[in-house]
Parts: sequence; structure tokens; C-alpha cells
Amino acid sequence: MAKTQVGPMEFLPETLQSLSSPGLLLVSRDDRRRPNAMTIGWGSIGIYWARPVFVVPVRKSRYTYGCIKNTGDFTVNVLPGKLADLAAFCGTVSGRDHDKLTEAHLTPAPSLVVKSPIIEECIINYECRVVHANDLLPKAVPSKVRRTMYPRGDYHRFFFGEILAVHAQPNVRRRL
Amino acid sequence: MAKTQVGPMEFLPETLQSLSSPGLLLVSRDDRRRPNAMTIGWGSIGIYWARPVFVVPVRKSRYTYGCIKNTGDFTVNVLPGKLADLAAFCGTVSGRDHDKLTEAHLTPAPSLVVKSPIIEECIINYECRVVHANDLLPKAVPSKVRRTMYPRGDYHRFFFGEILAVHAQPNVRRRL
Repeated sequence: MAKTQVGPMEFLPETLQSLSSPGLLLVSRDDRRRPNAMTIGWGSIGIYWARPVFVVPVRKSRYTYGCIKNTGDFTVNVLPGKLADLAAFCGTVSGRDHDKLTEAHLTPAPSLVVKSPIIEECIINYECRVVHANDLLPKAVPSKVRRTMYPRGDYHRFFFGEILAVHAQPNVRRRL
Repeated sequence: MAKTQVGPMEFLPETLQSLSSPGLLLVSRDDRRRPNAMTIGWGSIGIYWARPVFVVPVRKSRYTYGCIKNTGDFTVNVLPGKLADLAAFCGTVSGRDHDKLTEAHLTPAPSLVVKSPIIEECIINYECRVVHANDLLPKAVPSKVRRTMYPRGDYHRFFFGEILAVHAQPNVRRRL
């Protein structure tokens, strides 16, 4: 069924629940306009500079990192429950070597506002344009976090994306 | 009525709605153990390092900035609808010159986990310990944001607070 546009905060609990498990699809486009997806389990939603903002952390080693730097935008996509397994798949292979969306039978579709595509099969899509980015400061996290989550010094950049459009399928809650 | 402890994500929509308007009370304690409150209209909630996190931006000029640096923690408090006017009050005077809580007839109460107090009259209280902090990078925001929101170069630090406990009054939704 066709999606409708909804407010940026309308599906907060559903989105953060899905972020927690199985993960959300962070979708971007490389410099050859090929769509790419990675799975994120971390991020936050809120308000900065009087704008609704989705903050996503991306390690500098990730293929997605260069894509977002290139276009200055990204989309965040909530998988339906029946496709939840795809979060694990998109989180374990790299867009450098795989056309993940084709392999996962997911369909990229043009966004309304940003260059990065949205995923048709996902039940909620956030279109975001980067309004700020800053880096994790290694000395400013507890040493346990540094040791366990950054053993190779591959730190995150936090991309602050202004939420410009949100699309949702009908009956989102039943499809999670 | 007594508050109960709830999950960190249980009142997301209510909290972000209140962040948007009238604002939330960010409460900390100075080096003389005096509680202080400031009003925030910006911030985000989510997950980082597999922990629930409340991110709050605080300008370095603020009295609260030194308090949070000192204790390494803060609380975020949601005012009931009938006290919404106090958000404007706590947002316009400084804790350097005012005992805002006493003047606003708000009652600081001991937190369960952190040093900063919670506010008894607030319907939801988040206890947060700083797990990371980094700064807004002036060159990484649009020039319009820099011009309109930082005319004096008084930039924000983002404090990432792990949510360690959340207290909520019964019937939160009816009291907003």
C-alpha cells in the first residue's frame, strides 16, 4: 500500500525499538550513484537548532562514511518484522564488495528531498540532510568503552541529519 | 502520588514533545552542592555504546556547564502542564545570580544513582551520567545557523548522558 508523509516524531517509539533490535538501515549513495545500506544499532532522535534531527554514528572505515561525506545526506529505514533478518545481513558485509540491496532483494526508490534513496520495502523512511558532524573524542569515553568498542581505534563520526521528510506505510505498528 | 521506575524509552514521545515545548529542566549541582536548573529545548534520546543515552547541548557560558563538568552527571525533568510557565522562568535567569528552584517553588530531591538532584514536581525524571562529551564544530554547521544561533561564538558542548534510572508519576499522559 502507498506510504503517506507523517511528522518527524510520529513513530519515535517504533523507530527506537527497531534501532535497538534488529537495527535500522542507514542508506546512502556512492560517487557512482550506487545505493548502499548499512545496519545501525546506535543513534538518537531529537531537536537541534530548532530542527528535528536524526543523529547517526558512522565509523570512518565504513563505505557509508565516504558516501555521506559525498552527498551530504542519508536516509534511515525501518524494516518490517518479516524482513528483520536482513539487518544482520546488511551489517556483516561491506558495500565495497557487495551490492547489498540487490542481494537482499530490497528496492531503492527515489527520495522526495535528498539524493540518497529510501528503501521501498521498509515501513518507515526518514530523509535526512547533514547539518552538522563531529567526531567521537577517544579520551572522552570510559576506558572500557574505548577498549571493547574501539580496539582498533576505528572511531565514530556523528552525523547530525535534519529530518526533512518521513514516509510511513499504513499500520506500521502491526508490521514491526 | 509516588513515582515508579520505568524503562528509559517508555515516555519518549511525551519527553520529546515537552522538549519541543515548553522545554525540559536540565538539573545539575554546583561545587557548593546547590542545585541548579536550566531550560533546554534541544537534545536527543537514543542508544550509543549499547546504552540508553540522553544527549544535551550546553553552551560553555552557562552556569550548568561547570556544574556538569564538576559532577559528571545531570538529570532531565519533564514539567507537568500546570507548571509549564516555569520553563520560561528557568530559561531566562542564571543560576549564578538566582536560586532558581527556590524562586520557582520547585523541590530538589535526591536522585537514586547520580549526584545531581531530580525535581519532585516534575512528572518524569531521567538520571544521567556523562559517558561522552564533544563540542559543536563551528565550521561544520550551515552559516545561517552559525550567524543566527551563535552570534557571539558561544558554542555548545554535547554531553552524552547514559540514562541510569527513570522515574515517572502515574498518569503521565494526563498531566502533560
